Amino acid sequence: MREVLVFKNRPSILAADAVVGKKESEGPLGRYFDRVEADTTLGKPTWEQAESELQRRALLAALQGAGCDAQQLDVVFGGDLQAQCTASGYTARAVGRPFYNVYGACSTMSQSLLGAAAFVDGGYAETAGALTSSHFCAAERQFRFPLEYGGQRTPTSQWTVTAAGCCIVGRSTPGRPYIHFATVGRVIDYGVNDINNMGAAMAPAAADTLTRYLAATGTRTDDYDTVVTGDLGNVGSELLRQLLSQRGIELRNHLDCGCIIYDTTRSDVGAGGSGCGCSAAVLCKCLLPQLLAGQSRNILFMATGALMSTALYQQGETIPAVAHLINIRI
Amino acid sequence: MREVLVFKNRPSILAADAVVGKKESEGPLGRYFDRVEADTTLGKPTWEQAESELQRRALLAALQGAGCDAQQLDVVFGGDLQAQCTASGYTARAVGRPFYNVYGACSTMSQSLLGAAAFVDGGYAETAGALTSSHFCAAERQFRFPLEYGGQRTPTSQWTVTAAGCCIVGRSTPGRPYIHFATVGRVIDYGVNDINNMGAAMAPAAADTLTRYLAATGTRTDDYDTVVTGDLGNVGSELLRQLLSQRGIELRNHLDCGCIIYDTTRSDVGAGGSGCGCSAAVLCKCLLPQLLAGQSRNILFMATGALMSTALYQQGETIPAVAHLINIRI
Repeated sequence: MREVLVFKNRPSILAADAVVGKKESEGPLGRYFDRVEADTTLGKPTWEQAESELQRRALLAALQGAGCDAQQLDVVFGGDLQAQCTASGYTARAVGRPFYNVYGACSTMSQSLLGAAAFVDGGYAETAGALTSSHFCAAERQFRFPLEYGGQRTPTSQWTVTAAGCCIVGRSTPGRPYIHFATVGRVIDYGVNDINNMGAAMAPAAADTLTRYLAATGTRTDDYDTVVTGDLGNVGSELLRQLLSQRGIELRNHLDCGCIIYDTTRSDVGAGGSGCGCSAAVLCKCLLPQLLAGQSRNILFMATGALMSTALYQQGETIPAVAHLINIRI
Repeated sequence: MREVLVFKNRPSILAADAVVGKKESEGPLGRYFDRVEADTTLGKPTWEQAESELQRRALLAALQGAGCDAQQLDVVFGGDLQAQCTASGYTARAVGRPFYNVYGACSTMSQSLLGAAAFVDGGYAETAGALTSSHFCAAERQFRFPLEYGGQRTPTSQWTVTAAGCCIVGRSTPGRPYIHFATVGRVIDYGVNDINNMGAAMAPAAADTLTRYLAATGTRTDDYDTVVTGDLGNVGSELLRQLLSQRGIELRNHLDCGCIIYDTTRSDVGAGGSGCGCSAAVLCKCLLPQLLAGQSRNILFMATGALMSTALYQQGETIPAVAHLINIRI
């Protein structure tokens, strides 16, 4: 069994960028977000189409950063939360490059980066995109209620981030962060059946992937500058630390994107941020720039996703989850 | 630009199997289908859960054929048509192996095989699964109407196949079919907006991928024993031949899985079969056995998918589509 993918050719993240909404720009990380769409309709008639446009803008921004045009992309790995991944599908139509659509729910940023890294490292692509997005209004309609319903939210619920992020992966490039190792997640289900507590549903998947990765590489959490999770929020983050502690793994250098993108002392965001765009925006605008600035050199980035739909939830099913991990170094 | 993925290490399809429903077993290919679920509920309370079970049985059958157990799978590439790909997600939960969830609509069989081949060829996995399914009753509820509604069907509509198929991909193995080349599809949209004419929506994507592949490899359709498409049906197949003819490409050796899985002179199936399970079942139970029996030696397998959801369709969007191609040889 191969628990860890080894990328011998050091596929590099040539550039990364993200576009966020107004609420995200007003949060604790606001100063990092220089591409803000104050009008989250982006001039489109529906939230779903707005999300596609958000994604397209993130891709174009990342391409600009890498100094290449869309025609140089051999493949784009992308996905989102909408049924049948339409945010990504319609973006791919607009971009016109080969498209490998993935579904990892909120784990999509690490899943798509893992795929892009494998394709570049293995020589199947010269340049590959890794792309994802989420949009609060599209996600509410998809998973909960249309906004007009004005449903109340529980303290464990999380607020879907309106953001899209994109990384451009290419051949080994000195001075650029590169993807060294990765672990594909297993689907784990501890029987959580509260659709308003995704953090609890996802924490066991994060614990499983991190445990497998550390065992296979013979490393400890302290060997990394930071262990980043996607969007466990306050509730899921605490559960992750407990689950790991039970396995003898102490998580002293943990950072959860969902806990830092909003001010979680504000009641409206519940236990924190969520959505594919949450970890994507934090990766592209905070974590990768920190690597480039020499503030960190070796991180684990592990986005987590809850693989449920309203149909299965309404049928009484519990919520399975997955976490894909990548080790980024510079 | 790399239009074609070259798999130098000849990743082999160690085994493949499929499980089909009653209607499929009664069609023209019935004699090939030796795993039939006459009760398409598979003992489950809902159609969605029945589809997961169908997928799980196909995976176990393929593993049995390869003489290995699930623990030997380093990764499973899988996907389906349900919103948030839940048929695959719940199967992955049951199987417990690393899971790379893809969404390619009815192109999933070639998309997942392409991913599995790349991971094995590149050394990221020793053994990988490629898995997909569709279920008529789950798909009707997802994309059209609940069965109880008794909606009428148009002549261009297709009948979603109830079937799951799985290939086990491993290192180069003499005597086994291997994956030589592949092309990742672009998302193409010719403006078709009739949800009951998926064949017309998908034909341009198939034409695009095949044209790109032939140009990049310097080959002609006649260089292959058969050019197989997934589920264009009668309408889409005719359109594909026309589109290719306009580009100077004659398609004399074409076979569409959607045209052969049912008797299309029967009015209930409209223009033919569709769904991820259609091309999966034909590949696993007819095409690969023909390669093993020496009846063919070099085929192109190109499943096609329409990347739309009811939400976007109801918003007036047209239907984008994708086709992923793999070249299988023995």
